Amino acid sequence: MSAKRKKSHGKSAKQRYVYYFGDGKADGDGKMKPLLGGKGANLAEMTRIGLPVPPGFTITTEVCSYFYENGRKYPPELQAQVEAALGKIERSVGKKLGDLDKPLLLSVRSGARDSMPGMMDTILNLGMNDHVVEIVAEKSGNPRFAWDSYRRFIQMYGDVVLGVQKREGEEHEPFETVIEGIKHEAGVEKDTDLTVEDLKRMVERFKALVKERTGKTFPQDPRAQMWGSVGAVFGSWNNDRAIVYRRKYGIPHEWGTAVNVQTMVFGNRGDTSATGVAFTRDPASGEKVFYGEYLINAQGEDVVAGVRTPKPVAELAKEMPHAHKELLKVRATLEKHFKDMQDLEFTVEDNRLYILQTRNGKRTGLAAVKIAVDMVNEKLISKEDAVKRIPADSLSHVLAPVFDREAETAARKISSGLPAGPGAATGKVVFNAVDAVELAHKGDRVVLVRVETSPEDLRGMIAAEGILTARGGVSSHAALVARQMGKVCVCGASDLRIDYEKKTVTAGGITLGQGDYISINGTAGAVYAGEVQTAPSEVVQVLVAKSLPAKKSETYGKFAQLMTWVDKFRELDIRTNADSPDQVANALAFGAQGVGLCRTEHMFFEGNRIDAMREMILASKPEERAASLAKLLPYQREDFIGIFEELKGLPATIRFLDPPLHEFLPHGHDAQGKLADKLGVSLDQISKRVEELHEFNPMLGHRGCRLGISYPEISEMQARAIFEAAAEVQKKGIKVKPEIMIPLVGFAKELKLQIEVVRKVAAQVAREKKTKFNYLVGTMIEIPRAALLAGEIAREAEFFSFGTNDLTQTTLGMSRDDSGSFLPQYLELEIFKANPFATIDQPGVGRLMEIARDHGRKTRPNIKLGICGEHGGEPESVKFCHRLGLNYVSCSPFRVPIAKLAAAQAALA
Amino acid sequence: MSAKRKKSHGKSAKQRYVYYFGDGKADGDGKMKPLLGGKGANLAEMTRIGLPVPPGFTITTEVCSYFYENGRKYPPELQAQVEAALGKIERSVGKKLGDLDKPLLLSVRSGARDSMPGMMDTILNLGMNDHVVEIVAEKSGNPRFAWDSYRRFIQMYGDVVLGVQKREGEEHEPFETVIEGIKHEAGVEKDTDLTVEDLKRMVERFKALVKERTGKTFPQDPRAQMWGSVGAVFGSWNNDRAIVYRRKYGIPHEWGTAVNVQTMVFGNRGDTSATGVAFTRDPASGEKVFYGEYLINAQGEDVVAGVRTPKPVAELAKEMPHAHKELLKVRATLEKHFKDMQDLEFTVEDNRLYILQTRNGKRTGLAAVKIAVDMVNEKLISKEDAVKRIPADSLSHVLAPVFDREAETAARKISSGLPAGPGAATGKVVFNAVDAVELAHKGDRVVLVRVETSPEDLRGMIAAEGILTARGGVSSHAALVARQMGKVCVCGASDLRIDYEKKTVTAGGITLGQGDYISINGTAGAVYAGEVQTAPSEVVQVLVAKSLPAKKSETYGKFAQLMTWVDKFRELDIRTNADSPDQVANALAFGAQGVGLCRTEHMFFEGNRIDAMREMILASKPEERAASLAKLLPYQREDFIGIFEELKGLPATIRFLDPPLHEFLPHGHDAQGKLADKLGVSLDQISKRVEELHEFNPMLGHRGCRLGISYPEISEMQARAIFEAAAEVQKKGIKVKPEIMIPLVGFAKELKLQIEVVRKVAAQVAREKKTKFNYLVGTMIEIPRAALLAGEIAREAEFFSFGTNDLTQTTLGMSRDDSGSFLPQYLELEIFKANPFATIDQPGVGRLMEIARDHGRKTRPNIKLGICGEHGGEPESVKFCHRLGLNYVSCSPFRVPIAKLAAAQAALA
Repeated sequence: MSAKRKKSHGKSAKQRYVYYFGDGKADGDGKMKPLLGGKGANLAEMTRIGLPVPPGFTITTEVCSYFYENGRKYPPELQAQVEAALGKIERSVGKKLGDLDKPLLLSVRSGARDSMPGMMDTILNLGMNDHVVEIVAEKSGNPRFAWDSYRRFIQMYGDVVLGVQKREGEEHEPFETVIEGIKHEAGVEKDTDLTVEDLKRMVERFKALVKERTGKTFPQDPRAQMWGSVGAVFGSWNNDRAIVYRRKYGIPHEWGTAVNVQTMVFGNRGDTSATGVAFTRDPASGEKVFYGEYLINAQGEDVVAGVRTPKPVAELAKEMPHAHKELLKVRATLEKHFKDMQDLEFTVEDNRLYILQTRNGKRTGLAAVKIAVDMVNEKLISKEDAVKRIPADSLSHVLAPVFDREAETAARKISSGLPAGPGAATGKVVFNAVDAVELAHKGDRVVLVRVETSPEDLRGMIAAEGILTARGGVSSHAALVARQMGKVCVCGASDLRIDYEKKTVTAGGITLGQGDYISINGTAGAVYAGEVQTAPSEVVQVLVAKSLPAKKSETYGKFAQLMTWVDKFRELDIRTNADSPDQVANALAFGAQGVGLCRTEHMFFEGNRIDAMREMILASKPEERAASLAKLLPYQREDFIGIFEELKGLPATIRFLDPPLHEFLPHGHDAQGKLADKLGVSLDQISKRVEELHEFNPMLGHRGCRLGISYPEISEMQARAIFEAAAEVQKKGIKVKPEIMIPLVGFAKELKLQIEVVRKVAAQVAREKKTKFNYLVGTMIEIPRAALLAGEIAREAEFFSFGTNDLTQTTLGMSRDDSGSFLPQYLELEIFKANPFATIDQPGVGRLMEIARDHGRKTRPNIKLGICGEHGGEPESVKFCHRLGLNYVSCSPFRVPIAKLAAAQAALA
Repeated sequence: MSAKRKKSHGKSAKQRYVYYFGDGKADGDGKMKPLLGGKGANLAEMTRIGLPVPPGFTITTEVCSYFYENGRKYPPELQAQVEAALGKIERSVGKKLGDLDKPLLLSVRSGARDSMPGMMDTILNLGMNDHVVEIVAEKSGNPRFAWDSYRRFIQMYGDVVLGVQKREGEEHEPFETVIEGIKHEAGVEKDTDLTVEDLKRMVERFKALVKERTGKTFPQDPRAQMWGSVGAVFGSWNNDRAIVYRRKYGIPHEWGTAVNVQTMVFGNRGDTSATGVAFTRDPASGEKVFYGEYLINAQGEDVVAGVRTPKPVAELAKEMPHAHKELLKVRATLEKHFKDMQDLEFTVEDNRLYILQTRNGKRTGLAAVKIAVDMVNEKLISKEDAVKRIPADSLSHVLAPVFDREAETAARKISSGLPAGPGAATGKVVFNAVDAVELAHKGDRVVLVRVETSPEDLRGMIAAEGILTARGGVSSHAALVARQMGKVCVCGASDLRIDYEKKTVTAGGITLGQGDYISINGTAGAVYAGEVQTAPSEVVQVLVAKSLPAKKSETYGKFAQLMTWVDKFRELDIRTNADSPDQVANALAFGAQGVGLCRTEHMFFEGNRIDAMREMILASKPEERAASLAKLLPYQREDFIGIFEELKGLPATIRFLDPPLHEFLPHGHDAQGKLADKLGVSLDQISKRVEELHEFNPMLGHRGCRLGISYPEISEMQARAIFEAAAEVQKKGIKVKPEIMIPLVGFAKELKLQIEVVRKVAAQVAREKKTKFNYLVGTMIEIPRAALLAGEIAREAEFFSFGTNDLTQTTLGMSRDDSGSFLPQYLELEIFKANPFATIDQPGVGRLMEIARDHGRKTRPNIKLGICGEHGGEPESVKFCHRLGLNYVSCSPFRVPIAKLAAAQAALA
C-alpha cells in the first residue's frame, strides 16, 4: 500500500484524493473500503443502487497517511479536488456553503476501513455562523431548530476542533456547564423546554467560552470550518481511545481513516423529522426481525449516546407510516445487495427518508451463527460464505454457560432492561473503568455498572464479564460494544439508581456497593442481586449432557448445520487434549477426531495413586522404585483402557511423564509430616528429598524425557500400562492406535533411548498377550533445539507434536507464569501485537515451526505433524497451522468446534 | 572414511589390510596414522629411517571397523595377507612360528590413531607352548628366562583372550593368587627369587587354572594363539576404560584401532638385557634433557606398571655404555625427523638396542610452551607450527596458582617423590576412584592417593585435583595420565604407607584418613599434611602483580615470546569480561583489547550502593524511584571513569541492568528486619515487595531490557552515568568508546525503545558538557527469538554480542543451575559429547548464531559481532567463533591468553 502510494506520488500529480457521490452516481463503490473507508465506500455503493443518500464526497485514507507522514500537512492537490467536489454538491442540492440565500450545511465524519464506532470525531451542522443561522431560521420557519443546530455546531466544533474541554479541577464539560446555567436561569429541566431566546443566549455564551479558552473568536468562515473539521477528524485517528480500540481488534495503525463530507439532513426539524438506527435482523439473537430504534426531532448522536431512551423502530409505522414503508424497502434492498445483515443510520427530514450509513452489523456469536445459517437456507449466500463469515471465536458464545434454571428462579431479581448481549455474567459491581481494570487484574470477575457508557469506558468494558446500564437502547454505545466483544450486556435498566460518588447502585429495594456481587442475564434482560449459579449452554446440553433433545433446540440445529459444512471444507484434523475417559467422551461429542495430548501425570494425583507416586519419588534404590511403580501400573492401565474404549479406534497421543518430580511432593511442613506418617519414613527424609529436588528454574529443569532417561523404569511402566491396556481393549474387537509421545526432547539420542524402552516393552507385551500393536512413537517439539535439529530427530520420531506453550516460553525466554508483571505494558507499547501465550508468535515461534516442518519432512516425508499447546484452539493460530501444512491441531474439548471452524476458514481462504 | 571403505570393498578383493615393516623397508609410513594407528605408522617410519625396529606387520584400523560392522568377523582376504606378512618376518629373522628348531615369538599390540596409553590390551611372548619353551630354554641357555616368559604369556593370554579374571567374592586376580601360593611354598618374597622349578610348577598350575575356568586346555597352536590375540586386541577397543578415555579426550568411536604383530625382543634375558621408556625432553618441565627410566632384566610392562621403581636413564651410561650411546643417537635422529618431543620405548636384548615405539610425547602445559618455543629458537619448527601445536588450554597451567612460598615453607612436609605433574594441589585425601568421584561431585577438592594407579582409576584421576602415588616412576601410568590431563602429580613417594582397608596414609610420623587435607607440589615433588595456601604463578607475578621482574622468569619469557607470534597470526579480537577498573587493568595486562562485557549490576552490591538500590526497588512512585537512582548515579559514574581511564581509548561494552530485582533484596526474615530499620520502612512493606517480585522461573522473568521498559528511569540513570563519565575522561584527553548493550532483547521494538532513551540522554549530556560522544548502541543475542529475528533487530542495533550462557539455556530448555542432576548422566550416555555450558553446542546454539550472523549482516553489513558468554574463553568455542566470522570474543581476564592462542590456531587451521 505504502510502496504503491509512493510510486504514484512520484509518477503523477493527478492522483485522486476525493471521491464524489450523489444523485445516483458515485466515483467510488463498495469494494473500495481500504481507500474510502467502510462508510465512504458504502455511501458510494448505496448511491449507485439508488438509495436516498444525501450527496457528498470522501477524502481518501491515503490523505490520512500523507497527513501523518508529512507533519500534518495535506497533499497540495487536495484543495482543488475538494473545491470541485463541493461545487458538485452545491449544484446538486441548489445550495452554497456560506451563501446568504441558500446556505449549504455539511457533516464531516470519519470512516476507517473497519468500523470503529464512536472512537473518532464527527462534526455536524457545519456551515452555520451568525448570519447563516438567521437565514436557516427564516427559510425553515423553525427558528428553534436553527438556533439549536447552531449551538450544537459550536459545541462540537469547540470540543473537537478547538479543544475546549474539561480542565483539571472542573467537574463538568464547560459547554455542559453553560447549558445547565441557562436551564437553571430559565427554570426548566429538559433541553427541549428551552426557548429560542434561551438558545440564542446559549450561542452567545458558547462563543464567549471559546474566546476565553482559545483567545480567538469562533470561526465564521464556513470553508475555514470545513478544513478545521477535516483536520480534526484525521487527528482523531490517533486519539487514545482509537488506539486502544485498534489494539483490541488488531486494526493496523497504518490503515488510517477516510473523511466523509456530506450534505446535512435534519432529524431535528420538528415532529415530522426523526433519526434512528436499525439492523436488518436482530443483532443479539439473530432473529429475522427488523430491529432498531429512533427518536422524533433529534440528531443522530442523541440515539447512539443513549441520553434519551429511543422508541423501537416498529412504532415508526404508526408515527410516520410513509417513512416506515420506505425504510422496510431499504431494508430489503440492502440485505439483497450486501448479502449480510446491515446496520444502518437513517434520518427523516420533513417526512422524507435519507440513509446516512450502512455497514455489516456487528452481532453476537449466537446471532452470527443463526444469521449465516439462515441466509444459506434463504439462498442468499453460499455455505462457503457462511463458514467464512462467522468469527471462529463466536462459537464460544454459543457454548458459554447460561444461568442454571433453578438457581435463576430462586435468585433475587432487582431490575430488568434490554437484552443487549446474551449470556450469563456474575461478578463484583464496579462503577468505572479504573476500578474494573484493577479488580480484574487481581483476578476478580467484575460487572461494570454505568448510567450509560462512552468510549472512555472501553478499558473497563474489556476487563468486565458483563455490562449493565441504566440508560440507552439496544444500539447505544454499551450495547454495540458488548455485542462486538461478546460481553454479556443488559442496557436501559431504567429503574437503577446509580451513585458514582458513593459507588452504589440501588434497585428493587436493594443497594449494592462496589465489590458486592451482581448477576445479569443478557439473553433475557434480567438483573439479580448476588451470585447466580450457571449451567451448560443449550448446545452443551444436547451434545454432552444429553439433557435436551436435539430437536428442541433451535440453536443446536443451526450449530449442527454449520458444523456439517465446516467438516466438509476443512483439511486439518481436530483432536483434543484430554486426560480421562470422561474428557475424551465430551471431546468426541464436540467432534474431536482423536486425542492429541493425554497428559499421563494427571492420572497420578488422585486418591491412592499420589501415595504410590510419592513413594516412588522417595525411593533411594531402583528396586524400591520399581515396587512403587508396580503399584501405579494398574491405575494407569485402567485409565488407558477407558480412554481406548471411548476412542473406538481413533488415535490417542499419550505423553510420558513430564513435570519435575517435586511437583508431586507436599511442600508445607505439616503436609510433609502427614506424608511421613503415612509412608512410615522420617520427616527428615522427605524434607531432604524435597530440598534435593528444588530447582531455580523448574521449567528448564529435570523434567520431560530427562526423567525417563534418569529413571527408565518409569518409562517402562508407562509403556507397559499403555500396551497392556491396548491388548485388553483389542481383545474386545476394538481397534487401538496409541501414539506415544516423548516430551522435552532436544537431542536425537534422548529420543532414541526412550524409543528403545518403548519398543522393547511393546515387543514383550505383544509376546505375553499374543497380540500385535499398531502404534507410533514420536516427540514433542517444544524447545528451540529440537526445532533446529528436527532433521536428525525425525530419524527417530514417527511424529512431531508442537508443544507451543513451552516452545513460546523458551523461544521468547519468557515464563508464562511470571510475565504478568510486564505483559500488559508490552501490549500497550505494542512490543507485541498479541499475547504470545494466546496467539502463536509467528515470526519467532512460527519460524521455528517452519524449520522443524521442513527438516522433519525432508528426513521423513510422511512424518505426522500436529500441535498440542494452548494455541491449538485459538483461531489465528489454527489458521497458521493450516498454512504450515500440519496434519492436525489439538485443543481442549470445548474449543474443538472453534478450531474446526477456524480450520475450515483457513481452507477456504 | 566409512564411505571410502565401502567403496573399495565393492571395487576390489585386493584391498590391503596388512602392512609389513622390517629390514629398513616398510609398506606404510608415518603419515598413515588413520589407517595404521599411531604405533604402526611410526614403526614403519622408524624402519624407513634405519632405526633398529624388530620386523613385524600392522593390521589396519579398517579391519577393526569391519570387525564391529560384521559381528566380529574379519574380511575374508585377511588370513592370506597375514600369512604372507608372517612369512616375511620369518624370512627376515630366520625363525618360524611354532618351529621346534628356531621358534619365532611375537608380540601383539593395539595402536589407535591417537595414543591411548594403557587403555587396550597387549600380548607378549606369543608362540610359546609346552615344546617351544624347552627349545627357548635350550637355545638361550637361560631356562629361567624361557619359563618366566611362558608363564607371563599364559597369564596375559589367559586374562586378556580367555577372560580368566577375578570373580565376585575373590580378593585377588586368580593368576596372582597362584603366584602368591608358589612364593609362599618356596618361602620367597620376590618373583625374582623363584627357581626354574618353581616357574615350571607355576606354568602347570596356570594351565590347570585355565582349564578349570574355561573348560578348555590352554591353546598350544601358535597360529591359534595369534588369531586369538588379534581378536582380543580388536575387542579391547570397546572395553569400558577405552570408552571412558575416548569420551574424555573426544576420540571418535568410529576410528578403531590397528593391531601390530611384531617379533619379540627380550629385555628379560638377564643382566645384559633391559627395557625402558624415554622422552627426548623433560615432559613435565620441558627442559631439553634426555629423560626416562629403565629396568635391567625386565619386560616392558614392568616399567609402565610401576611395580618396580626403575632407574633414571642416565644410569644406563654406566650399566650399558654401548646401548646408551646408541640410544642418544636414536634420540637425536627422532627429534630431527619427527620435529617434536618423542616418547619412545626401547629394549636392550643382549646388549643390542631395539626401538619398539615412538610417538609425540604427552607433556604438561608448561612443557608444551617451553618445548614449542625452544624448538622455534632451535630452528626445528616454524612459529606457525609452535602456535598450532600447543593445546590452548595448556596456558591455564602456565597461569595456574602455585603454593605461596611462605606458606609452603611453614607447612609440614611429610614425604617427597618425583615431580610428575607440575603445580600446586590441595584437597581431601581419597583412596579410590569411587570415593574421589563421590566427594568431587559434592563439591570437595580431592587428592587421589594410591600405591600405584591403573586404568581402572581413570575416573578418580579425572575427579581429583592431584594424584599422589607411592610407587612408579615419571613414566608410570599415574605420571603419564596426570601430565596429559594437566593434573598435579607426585609419584613414587616411596615412604608413604597406604592402607586401603582402613583408608589411611602414613608418612613423616603423621597418619591421614579419608577426608583429611593433604597438599602436593608437583613441580618440586613435595608432599605436605594439611592445606597450604596458594599464590599466583610466575607469569601472573610478572604481568599482574608485577612482583617479579620479567627477565627473572624463564617461563614468562617463553610465554611472552609465544604471545607475540599468537598476536601476529590471529584475526579475532580478544576482549574481556570485567566489571571494575581493577579487573580491566588485569585483563589489559594479559593482552585484552577492550571490555566485551561490563555487568553494571555488579556495581550495585558494595557498601552504601546496595541500600540506594534497595530503596529504589521498594519505591512505589516514579519520583521516589528517581530519588534513589540519583543516589546511585555518582557511584556508577565513578566506576565508569575508572574503567574508561584504564582502557585509554579501547572500547567498552557496557550492559544495562540485567538480573531480576529480587536478587537485590534480602530473603531471610532477619535481614529484612534490619533493612526495614535501616530504610525506615515497615518489615511488612519489604516482605510484601519480596513476595511481589517472586518468580517461578526467574531466568525467564522480569529482567534484562524488560526492566528498562518497565522503569525507563533506570536506563536513563545508567546512560547518564556512562556519558557523564565519558565527558569527564574525554576532558583529560583520553578517548572513550562506550558500546552500550541492551540485554535480553527478543523484539526489535524493545531495543528501539531503549535506544531512544540512550540517544536522548547522550544528546542531553553532550549539550550540558559541550562535548561529543563516539558510541554505539547494540544488543545481546541471548534468546532464540532474537537470533531468528536478527534481521529486524539489526535495523536498530549497531552491534550484536552473543550471550551464549542464556542462549544455551533457552535453546536447550535447560537451566545451568539445575542441570547438575542429569548432566553427568547425559555425558555418560553421550546424549551430548561435551557439556554445552562449557563448549558451544554447535548444531543447536551455533546454528542460531549462524542465522543471527547471516540476517544481521544482511540488514547491516558492517554490524559488529562478538560473544560474551563463558564460552568466549573455551578453545573449541573460540575456534567456532572464528569460523563464524565474529569480530571478537570476550572472556574472563585469566582466559585472555588461552582465547588468543585458540584464535591464532583457528586462523592457521
